[in-house]
Amino acid sequence: MTSAPGESSRVTISDIAERAGVSIGAVSFALNGRKGVSETTRERVLRIADDLGWAPASAARSLAESRTETFGMVLARDPGNLSVESFYMQFLAGLESELGQRGYGLLLQVVSSREDELATLQKWRRSRRVDGVLLMDVTIDDPRVTLLSQPGSLPAIVVGDPSVAGNLSCVWTDDAKSMRDAVRYLADLGHTAIARVGGLPHFAHTRIRDDAFMSEMRQRGLDPTLLRTDYTAAEGARATRDALGAGVAPTAFVYDNDIMTVAGLSVAMELGRRVPDDLSLIAWDDSVLCEHTFPQLTALSHDVVAFGAHVARRLFGVVDGAPRGEHKDSTPLLRPRASTAPRKAADY
Amino acid sequence: MTSAPGESSRVTISDIAERAGVSIGAVSFALNGRKGVSETTRERVLRIADDLGWAPASAARSLAESRTETFGMVLARDPGNLSVESFYMQFLAGLESELGQRGYGLLLQVVSSREDELATLQKWRRSRRVDGVLLMDVTIDDPRVTLLSQPGSLPAIVVGDPSVAGNLSCVWTDDAKSMRDAVRYLADLGHTAIARVGGLPHFAHTRIRDDAFMSEMRQRGLDPTLLRTDYTAAEGARATRDALGAGVAPTAFVYDNDIMTVAGLSVAMELGRRVPDDLSLIAWDDSVLCEHTFPQLTALSHDVVAFGAHVARRLFGVVDGAPRGEHKDSTPLLRPRASTAPRKAADY
Repeated sequence: MTSAPGESSRVTISDIAERAGVSIGAVSFALNGRKGVSETTRERVLRIADDLGWAPASAARSLAESRTETFGMVLARDPGNLSVESFYMQFLAGLESELGQRGYGLLLQVVSSREDELATLQKWRRSRRVDGVLLMDVTIDDPRVTLLSQPGSLPAIVVGDPSVAGNLSCVWTDDAKSMRDAVRYLADLGHTAIARVGGLPHFAHTRIRDDAFMSEMRQRGLDPTLLRTDYTAAEGARATRDALGAGVAPTAFVYDNDIMTVAGLSVAMELGRRVPDDLSLIAWDDSVLCEHTFPQLTALSHDVVAFGAHVARRLFGVVDGAPRGEHKDSTPLLRPRASTAPRKAADY
Repeated sequence: MTSAPGESSRVTISDIAERAGVSIGAVSFALNGRKGVSETTRERVLRIADDLGWAPASAARSLAESRTETFGMVLARDPGNLSVESFYMQFLAGLESELGQRGYGLLLQVVSSREDELATLQKWRRSRRVDGVLLMDVTIDDPRVTLLSQPGSLPAIVVGDPSVAGNLSCVWTDDAKSMRDAVRYLADLGHTAIARVGGLPHFAHTRIRDDAFMSEMRQRGLDPTLLRTDYTAAEGARATRDALGAGVAPTAFVYDNDIMTVAGLSVAMELGRRVPDDLSLIAWDDSVLCEHTFPQLTALSHDVVAFGAHVARRLFGVVDGAPRGEHKDSTPLLRPRASTAPRKAADY
C-alpha cells in the first residue's frame, strides 16, 4: 500500500482492500452498494476510499452505469463567425452553470459542415461518448432531427421552435411575438419604412422572425425592407449602407444580433445620420455591448444565460425519460433605451 | 444477427462474428490488429464491421488504449463575465479547429472558484476523463501549476508566461513588448499623461503588462495612471469617467480588452470629448468589434484563433511526450486606426 492522496499513482481497490484488511471482493461490494458486506465494513471501506482519494475510473464506471456524465454539443459554424456574437458564450455559461452543479461536463465540437455534424452525432451514439446532445441552429427539415428521432438514438433536445423539433423535445422562445412587438413599437413612434437586418435564411428562427416581421408590417400597411446577412458586423454594416442609399430609405432598423447593430450605428454616424434623431435602431439579442454604446441601444432582451440553464435542465429530463415536451422559455422583451425615438416631423 | 447501420441496437463483435462466420476471438484479433488471424480474414472482418457501422464503445476502447480523445479546460469565471469578451470564443474556435481535425473533443467546465477548479482537475486525473488539460488565466504561484507538475499528473499546457509555468510547457505572447510599443506610439504622438485600464491584478499577464507600462512610462519621464477593473464594460466605463474627472486627466488610454474600450469611447462621447481629437484610445485585443465602432479603434492585434490552434498543437505534443518547452506565439502588433491622433497643441 503506497498510494496516498496527492501522490501520482492511481489508488486502486486493492489499495483500499489492503488498508481495510478485507478482500477485494468485499471492497467492490461496498463501493458499489451491493449486499455481501456488513454495514460496518461498508462504512469503513467508504471512509478509507475517501481518505485515499479514490475515484472510480470514469471509463470503467461508464461501462457499468452507461452514464458518461457528459452532454454533447456540435456547432457547424465558421470559427471566425462563432467568435463574433455574445449569444453563444452566454448560452454556454448558462449550460455550464447547470451542468457543473451535477458534475457534468460539456463536450464541445466545432465542425465546418452540416455533414460533419451528422457524422459526429453518429460517432457519439455508436461510441457512447455523451449521455445526450443539444441541437442548435435548427433548420426546416433538419436531418439531425430525423437522425435523432430514430428509436435508440441519443437523447436530444432541440433548442428551437416546436415546428421544427419533430418527435424531439424542445425549448423555444416566442420570437414571432417579440418581432411583432418591435414593429408595433416603431410604428407607434411614427416610423413607416422599417428594415429588418436578418440572419441566415436556412435557420428556422430566421424564417419565423421574417414571417412575423412581414405579416405585422403588411397588416399595418407599412413599408418593409428585408435584408439578408450572415450575422457578421461587416454584413450588418453593408446592409445598413445599402438600405440608407435606397430611394426611400428606412427610418428604423431591427437587427438580428448586437454586433450588427453596433456596426449599423457606426455606419449611421459615418454618414452623418443622428441616432435616434434621424434613425431608430433596435438590437436582438440585448447584451452588455448594447448598454455601452453611445447612444445605448434599444434591444429585445432575453436572459440567454438563464435560457442555457433551462435547456440543460430539460436535457437532464429527456435523459431521465421525460415524455416529449415543448418548453417555452421567457419571451424576449423590448427594452427601450436611447437608440429609438419618434420619426422626425420633417419626414412626414 | 439483426443489427444494421441506422438501426437502434448497437452492433457488437458477435454480430460481426456471425456475419463473417468466424469466432468472436478471431473478430477481436482482427479489430485490434493482433496476430492470430489470416490477412484475408482480417480484411473481411474489417469490411463487415464497417458495413455494419460498428464502432468500439469509447469507454471500452479508452480502458484498452488509455486515450479519451478529449482535452479538458476548466474556467473559474463568473458566467456573466465570461460572456462579455470576444477572446474566449475566438480562442475556443481556434482550439476546436485543431481538435476537430484529429477527432478530439473539448470538455469544458465552468466553475465558480479556484478551489472548484483544482477539485475538477483532480477528479479528471483520478477518473481519466481527459488526455490533457489547458491552464488559462495563470496567476503568480498558481496552485494548479503545482498540482500538475507532480509526477503522474495529467499532461498539461500553460497558456501564459514562462515565469509562471513552473515545470510545465507553455505557450506565451510577449505582452511586455506589445505594451511598450503602445506607450512608445502614444508618446511619439505627443501624449504625456497616459492611463492603462488593466484587468484583474492576480493574473500573471496583468502584472506583466502593468510592469511594462510603468517602466516604459517612467523611463520616458511620462505621467502614468494605472486603473484596475474586472474586465467588464461597466468597470471600463467607470475607470474612464474617474480618470477624466481627475485634476490632470490623461489624454490617452490603453484598455485591457475590446469591450472596455467601446465603453470608454461611449463615456468620452457622452462627456463631449472627441475621439481622437481630444482623446486617444487603444484596445487590447483587437477584434471585429474594434473595426465596427465609429471611429474604428486602434488596437493591439493578435490572431487569437491561431493562438488557440497553436496551444492545441502543443498540448498534443505534451501528451505525446515532448520535453518541456516555452513556445512563443506571435507578438500582438499595434494596428493604428482612427481612435488615436497627435495630442492637441492647446494641451501643451
